[in-house]
Amino acid sequence: MDPAGRWLRERLGCSLNDTGLLLRALTHRSHGPDHNERLEFLGDAVLSFVVAELLFQAYPQASEGELSRFRANLVSGDALALVASGLGLGEHVRLGEGELKSGGQQRASILADTLEAVVGAVYLDRGLAATSALAARLFAGQLAALPESAELKDAKTRLQEWLQGRGLDLPAYSVLETTGEPHAQRFRVRCDIAGLGIAAEAEGSSRRRAEQEAALRVLEDPALKGGR
Amino acid sequence: MDPAGRWLRERLGCSLNDTGLLLRALTHRSHGPDHNERLEFLGDAVLSFVVAELLFQAYPQASEGELSRFRANLVSGDALALVASGLGLGEHVRLGEGELKSGGQQRASILADTLEAVVGAVYLDRGLAATSALAARLFAGQLAALPESAELKDAKTRLQEWLQGRGLDLPAYSVLETTGEPHAQRFRVRCDIAGLGIAAEAEGSSRRRAEQEAALRVLEDPALKGGR
Repeated sequence: MDPAGRWLRERLGCSLNDTGLLLRALTHRSHGPDHNERLEFLGDAVLSFVVAELLFQAYPQASEGELSRFRANLVSGDALALVASGLGLGEHVRLGEGELKSGGQQRASILADTLEAVVGAVYLDRGLAATSALAARLFAGQLAALPESAELKDAKTRLQEWLQGRGLDLPAYSVLETTGEPHAQRFRVRCDIAGLGIAAEAEGSSRRRAEQEAALRVLEDPALKGGR
Repeated sequence: MDPAGRWLRERLGCSLNDTGLLLRALTHRSHGPDHNERLEFLGDAVLSFVVAELLFQAYPQASEGELSRFRANLVSGDALALVASGLGLGEHVRLGEGELKSGGQQRASILADTLEAVVGAVYLDRGLAATSALAARLFAGQLAALPESAELKDAKTRLQEWLQGRGLDLPAYSVLETTGEPHAQRFRVRCDIAGLGIAAEAEGSSRRRAEQEAALRVLEDPALKGGR
């Protein structure tokens, strides 16, 4: 078995029937015309989806906003680059000479894109169940570090409880601005915490979403850190 | 069969084993606690993915950038709202009284979100193949309106051919600015068409991507419209 195939089997626990597909997934555009950018497109899409489903199943109580945030953290470029780097993916990326000389094997964007392309190749060759299992292995560490399902409450509830626990007044929400056509309005709201002299603003497609986001920003204020 | 189930079967060509799941998918948060926002999260993810795969298979020559643009057009909020509206989804959305009075049944964001939630329910109940088939039906019109695979060339090539066909000088690309750390650089480039006195600027994670985007913007200039 070629080194790339062995790497895939040993580090990612997968093997592909079509070894050409794996080579293409590992080939950066700088290396030649049979490169991995289309596989990266597919891999990005399938990875976002299988991670969404993993989170959907793991957090039956989490709100849409929490699921979205968890996913954004897991599949961000930086997070993917870190996973790829930990797997030693850089050694198997096929780069053009210029990229090679300028350290492309360790470049975060190349590592992240190549990992997505490998996921795309696994999907094409092995199907959805194998891809989902691969994602669960790739993100096992990050998934384990996420909060317990029971700890999750929506931001407004958490903020209210935090304030009540300290005998402080409840937050005051106000709509600062409503923009857009009636069928596609945007709401800009402000959340004021009088007792702490802090406030946050946020925007959303509904008043409720904007309020949740504003509450979340208050919760992320250094003045409240550790209290969540 | 209840009206919602009949609508799903007659207009979307699907039926679910779990009728409660369909009701939840149709329930806006304003209606009550058992609402569709989590299903919307899952549906958005699976829809983005199955549309990505449809495009990946339908356009073997298309670049990643073209596939991304096609998909963004198909699954944008406005496009989804249009599809949902054409299917008469508004009649089946379950809204709270306030939303109902303010015309929520026709609001684009509610229609788009609810359609995503229905897709999420179809995925949970019927699996990926049924979801992919549903997406192909939902977007049949839009997919048919996309350019033929053979017409697709990258933007720089199309721009060059357009100019050559009119005896004009080739475009001049120049890098205006390079920002960011060495491992995560951003390139800002300019594409000048001297013969027409027009230009466009664009940014990207590589010089090539920025040039392609700048070429695309020139192609979209009214001065060139109809020539693509």
